Amino acid sequence: MANKEHTIFGIYPIEEAVSSDIVVDKLFVQKDIVNPKIDSIIKQLEKLDTTINYVPIEKLNRLTKGNHQGIVAYTSPISFYSLEEVIESSLSKKESSLFLILDQISDVRNFGAIIRTAECTGVDAIIIQKKGGAPITGDTVKTSAGAIFKIPICKVDHIKDAIYYLQASNIETVAATEKATESIYDLDLNKPIAIIMGSEGKGVSNSVLNIADHKASLPLKGQINSLNVSVASGAFLYEVVRQRGL
Amino acid sequence: MANKEHTIFGIYPIEEAVSSDIVVDKLFVQKDIVNPKIDSIIKQLEKLDTTINYVPIEKLNRLTKGNHQGIVAYTSPISFYSLEEVIESSLSKKESSLFLILDQISDVRNFGAIIRTAECTGVDAIIIQKKGGAPITGDTVKTSAGAIFKIPICKVDHIKDAIYYLQASNIETVAATEKATESIYDLDLNKPIAIIMGSEGKGVSNSVLNIADHKASLPLKGQINSLNVSVASGAFLYEVVRQRGL
Repeated sequence: MANKEHTIFGIYPIEEAVSSDIVVDKLFVQKDIVNPKIDSIIKQLEKLDTTINYVPIEKLNRLTKGNHQGIVAYTSPISFYSLEEVIESSLSKKESSLFLILDQISDVRNFGAIIRTAECTGVDAIIIQKKGGAPITGDTVKTSAGAIFKIPICKVDHIKDAIYYLQASNIETVAATEKATESIYDLDLNKPIAIIMGSEGKGVSNSVLNIADHKASLPLKGQINSLNVSVASGAFLYEVVRQRGL
Repeated sequence: MANKEHTIFGIYPIEEAVSSDIVVDKLFVQKDIVNPKIDSIIKQLEKLDTTINYVPIEKLNRLTKGNHQGIVAYTSPISFYSLEEVIESSLSKKESSLFLILDQISDVRNFGAIIRTAECTGVDAIIIQKKGGAPITGDTVKTSAGAIFKIPICKVDHIKDAIYYLQASNIETVAATEKATESIYDLDLNKPIAIIMGSEGKGVSNSVLNIADHKASLPLKGQINSLNVSVASGAFLYEVVRQRGL
């Protein structure tokens, strides 16, 4: 569900948006339409890994009452930063850098709640992967309580490459996983770090766990042994806040 | 939205449920129906502060395909404990008691997530007020990840009376509020305590804040200065876990 303000339609407006680096989250194109300008838009957005949906004209008519010319886009209300930019800017601060990497969080409400917590705990930037995670929808914006407009978000091609890049910048990575023998409370979180949270179903992926500098868990004292990912993110980030002091 | 398994209908089954102390969350009664047995069920449930909805017969027909005789109930899939019981049982444990009081949490998903976190952090029981909070629905059960069946829940008439009762049992109360000057990290959480979390919109009510032994905040380092209540609950409860050790 996208906020209506963020729906644009018609060939010219979408061309303009794409050329102005406005982020298109999803593109809806009329099935079997033949139009070289639409083909060109699709090509540009495919390069950016935008989801392209080919749909019947009736679907487009439901998405907008305007003259859509066979093409409707949901734009993302936020702008994204490059990893280089946010690392650079975090290193110029007095406090140690703090990044949050989300490895395929799929629920838009969890995503929004995590963004909100990250803003409240002074995270420098949230790093997500272009493909596979929750889209930024009206629900994400709403559950983030507006935090999404206040905190830089980086969309990277691959989480693994981002981790290598962070490590090369002397930022240690801490993956949250219930399988870790070390508790988050045993780690020194005063140095520059990036915390990695995994997806609701599968947790942090194995390939990411393999390259993380540390793996850490939260103590679980009950029978269900499974926390909501936004709650777990909050417990990790607040332990960083606690250790670093106000 | 109630789970279908937890819908019962017809006079006799509902009479049976009520007399067996099965918790009726909501009762739907056909508008203008005249039946002394139904009146008697309503009277009993009103005493328990159950929500009674008077609805057209068409609504009842949509709730169930069975012969509802003008009355349908959503039952709560969990059973409730008395405050006396849970305090008694917590005092017999080796570890310090830990209770969680929810002062009018209204979102069923937040409620579910908090129950899940409470189970994971070893909370002895969750205390809620009979009136005014989120009902226990299928969504609550789902977001609790089944924790709702594993952790005792007490429904009390008034949060304030529960606080007095806890205090009389030497259990100190800590209200979470952004207005507190003291941080949760400054408090000794090793003694028996009950943490009080307030509603999404208003926080802990003033009358409750006035009688709580401590008020504590979480540091907020951003601009939005507002955490999701389930995330904040997690940060508070995990600070208790951290201080008490594994």
